[in-house]
Amino acid sequence: MKHYFNLFTWLPLIFFIHSINLNPTHSLTIPRLSPFQEKTLHDIATLVSNDPKDVETFYYKQVLDHFNYNPESYNTFNQRYLINFKYWGGANSSAPIFVYFGPEQPIDGSPKSIGFMVEKAPTFKALLVYIEHRYYGKSVPFGSREEAFKNANTLGYFNSAQALADYAEVIIDIKKTLHAQNSPVVLIGGSYGGMLASWFRLKYPHLAIGALASSAPILYFDDITSPNAYFDVVSRDFKEVSETCYETILNSWSEIDKVASQPNGLSILSQRFNTCRPLNHSFELSEDLESMYTSAAQYNHPPDYPVTVICSGIDKASFGNNILDKIYSGVVAYKGNGTCKVNNPKNISETDVGWRWQTCSEMVMPFAIGNDTMFQPSPFDLKRFVERCKKKYGVSPRPHWITTYYGGHDIKRVLQKFGSNIIFSNGLKDPYSSAGVLHDLSKSLVAVPTINDINSIAGSHCLDILPSKESDPKWLIEQRNKEVKIIQEWIAQYYIDLGALHGSPKFQNN
Amino acid sequence: MKHYFNLFTWLPLIFFIHSINLNPTHSLTIPRLSPFQEKTLHDIATLVSNDPKDVETFYYKQVLDHFNYNPESYNTFNQRYLINFKYWGGANSSAPIFVYFGPEQPIDGSPKSIGFMVEKAPTFKALLVYIEHRYYGKSVPFGSREEAFKNANTLGYFNSAQALADYAEVIIDIKKTLHAQNSPVVLIGGSYGGMLASWFRLKYPHLAIGALASSAPILYFDDITSPNAYFDVVSRDFKEVSETCYETILNSWSEIDKVASQPNGLSILSQRFNTCRPLNHSFELSEDLESMYTSAAQYNHPPDYPVTVICSGIDKASFGNNILDKIYSGVVAYKGNGTCKVNNPKNISETDVGWRWQTCSEMVMPFAIGNDTMFQPSPFDLKRFVERCKKKYGVSPRPHWITTYYGGHDIKRVLQKFGSNIIFSNGLKDPYSSAGVLHDLSKSLVAVPTINDINSIAGSHCLDILPSKESDPKWLIEQRNKEVKIIQEWIAQYYIDLGALHGSPKFQNN
Repeated sequence: MKHYFNLFTWLPLIFFIHSINLNPTHSLTIPRLSPFQEKTLHDIATLVSNDPKDVETFYYKQVLDHFNYNPESYNTFNQRYLINFKYWGGANSSAPIFVYFGPEQPIDGSPKSIGFMVEKAPTFKALLVYIEHRYYGKSVPFGSREEAFKNANTLGYFNSAQALADYAEVIIDIKKTLHAQNSPVVLIGGSYGGMLASWFRLKYPHLAIGALASSAPILYFDDITSPNAYFDVVSRDFKEVSETCYETILNSWSEIDKVASQPNGLSILSQRFNTCRPLNHSFELSEDLESMYTSAAQYNHPPDYPVTVICSGIDKASFGNNILDKIYSGVVAYKGNGTCKVNNPKNISETDVGWRWQTCSEMVMPFAIGNDTMFQPSPFDLKRFVERCKKKYGVSPRPHWITTYYGGHDIKRVLQKFGSNIIFSNGLKDPYSSAGVLHDLSKSLVAVPTINDINSIAGSHCLDILPSKESDPKWLIEQRNKEVKIIQEWIAQYYIDLGALHGSPKFQNN
Repeated sequence: MKHYFNLFTWLPLIFFIHSINLNPTHSLTIPRLSPFQEKTLHDIATLVSNDPKDVETFYYKQVLDHFNYNPESYNTFNQRYLINFKYWGGANSSAPIFVYFGPEQPIDGSPKSIGFMVEKAPTFKALLVYIEHRYYGKSVPFGSREEAFKNANTLGYFNSAQALADYAEVIIDIKKTLHAQNSPVVLIGGSYGGMLASWFRLKYPHLAIGALASSAPILYFDDITSPNAYFDVVSRDFKEVSETCYETILNSWSEIDKVASQPNGLSILSQRFNTCRPLNHSFELSEDLESMYTSAAQYNHPPDYPVTVICSGIDKASFGNNILDKIYSGVVAYKGNGTCKVNNPKNISETDVGWRWQTCSEMVMPFAIGNDTMFQPSPFDLKRFVERCKKKYGVSPRPHWITTYYGGHDIKRVLQKFGSNIIFSNGLKDPYSSAGVLHDLSKSLVAVPTINDINSIAGSHCLDILPSKESDPKWLIEQRNKEVKIIQEWIAQYYIDLGALHGSPKFQNN
């Protein structure tokens, strides 16, 4: 079966894709780039928690275009940010400010989901700030989401450079308002937000003393990382858990196609997989399965370890012993009993809509599937990708812009003597870690990957910044402790530098 | 007499200024920010020279707006750049590329005027590239200068962040076209171009290994440097040459006003100063004199030393012994005999027009005159400045943007552990050096100010990158040698790093 690449995986937009494809086939997912699964959000047992009443909402009058001076660029919109003052040591003691960069979603859930900040706030006496990314949540220009997302004329301002400039303006404003000029700012971000945090530290070193960039695949652009890398890791994750599970999945795709091509094939598949709606194409099944596997690998966190859950299901084969029975057994193990499993009408989230634009403009991450995975091979076709984006938005992506503006090629040589104070943390089972910084670039541009024991790796997408749990394994606790220690060193050094420059002992480490 | 600040000094635009001022008075100049005087351009005696036939012209299809994705942002214009291949060691030996960032003027004259590049090219076997800044020379969007400068709608794209992104695109394209991926790029810029060079090294470290930023007043923004600094240095320059000269100039302003207020006063002044046109206001005289003093100080280079020339004239008093006679004697000494001296209708240059927009949008450098100079005090009135710009262009300046985007406050603390490989060179008699980086920020962010002998300072605006002369004093030769040595070290280290990463001795220092 011929595969091709679909940039709008988890969206009904696949219909759009297929409508321009004369020979509709199974279309592949761009793996979701989000700091957490919905599931994780509702599965929180923090030691210290952001009490909703401690979190105040503010709005900053943000300029529409920082890089232009035409009249339209002066339009403003209200950018939302949240502050928790509870743990802050205050401006007088130059206590630190932790700033979380909202990624491709509304900021509402962040105080709860980014457990690292609130849990570590007492130790640092830190002010907690969460800034929403433009075009998400309540931080939408042009008066309404409808207007803002109308077409490329209004969407054009929706990009990372503008977002970083927004963050800069808000940080400056907060420090000014709180008379906290001497308070060091430490950035925290995960996934796309982690990219933004690391890029901000590199572009605006005067506004933040360091950044914790969790699971930031800053090298998944241009030709820096193999386009196959993501699915290679997904496959490796599964293989490590169970070779038989891996083989079953590998063999399932042709089996699905075989059944689908039979008379009543789609109906048989619909029944076997307990679909929410009857399948019209076999790719509707294949995509859901792919999406489940990639999601399980990306968020393969303790204590449940979704990859293990799926593979246990597949290997146990509770629903029968042929290939599709086994796969279905895996689906049930992962999704539970009771409800339908596949081909569920999807709710389109803000992330879906926003990230679709972002990947179709600048965030062009080439995903492909190589020859040695549990999936069917699928190349990345940039030309086709560009054509589809152009058809959808009327403008072409700029696939080289990210590396032009932020770099990425030859990163070790470029940054080993340039820049400082970034933690690149990664869970090594997270497929996105394949494009993360996994080795120290210099003494202060450090990689903090999850290290389990001598022979194995662990860790999932953004796990270190999510809320801690009683059940957290040692390697995760150690990863977070290491991050805290490094941030403490940044801040201590900052106070020393500040004191030295001001020639006074006023700025003591608190 | 009440002073106020005029942002359009050397322009007929003063008429515009006065038209909105109910009580027209003498208006002060924003000192010209240009790497060289016209005079210097025609006064070249290089040891090695860019033969015009060695310089080839190219155009790059540049995108109008790098930070937007609306349809208009995809418009392109031809950006001009010049290359001299003569001295290049070639891509195979990874020989370096020197890139000069065109400042606020057409690039035509740069191969001749930026003597440092062509003179040092043989030593480095360097490719010489000169890239024109958008909206100058032939690098104008919207098809024509007329369209491009029509109003803020078309001018909006004319700013430093866009210019840096242009340079990034051109550098990437040149390296790709020449298969010179491993050739290190060293940036060279003077004045505004020097700011751009240092900012580019900070923002795009992946595209250039280092920058020589000559006379770059990157700290003349916001409240970092006293607004008085520029005129303080001008006055100090004069005082150091001659206290009596300084006193004469100091006393001349009230004398001019006194004469001007007499019956036929302006006519008397017109005669005394051999004006090109009869004076209508005394400020026409005062401004020309101020402009002469600031220009002399800024370009106070050997062997003629214009400040000394003027003061010798004033002190010798060849045209009479009263104050205005003495001042006129200074004017004649500086400008020579034969022609009219003051109130000459000015030709509006591209620099005049372009820089006016730039200062009215983002490059807001607050200039004032303090109480202890040879000029009359004049505060900087930001509010008024903003009003005037708004009246002229319909949009307001963003006076804090430069420090938001590029930093500047607390620069030593911010950069002492961040960034590398920038030379901040300054001539210490250049009034703009007051906002330059005059002390090392770190081991590799170094200041190379001109040092004469133990007790005196020397050096003028961008002198180090201008063509060398047989008459060059030792301190200037040493400054340039020091710069060469530092750049050689950058390149040597680069080859070591490259070799280490590629695990081969292929990349030797050449």
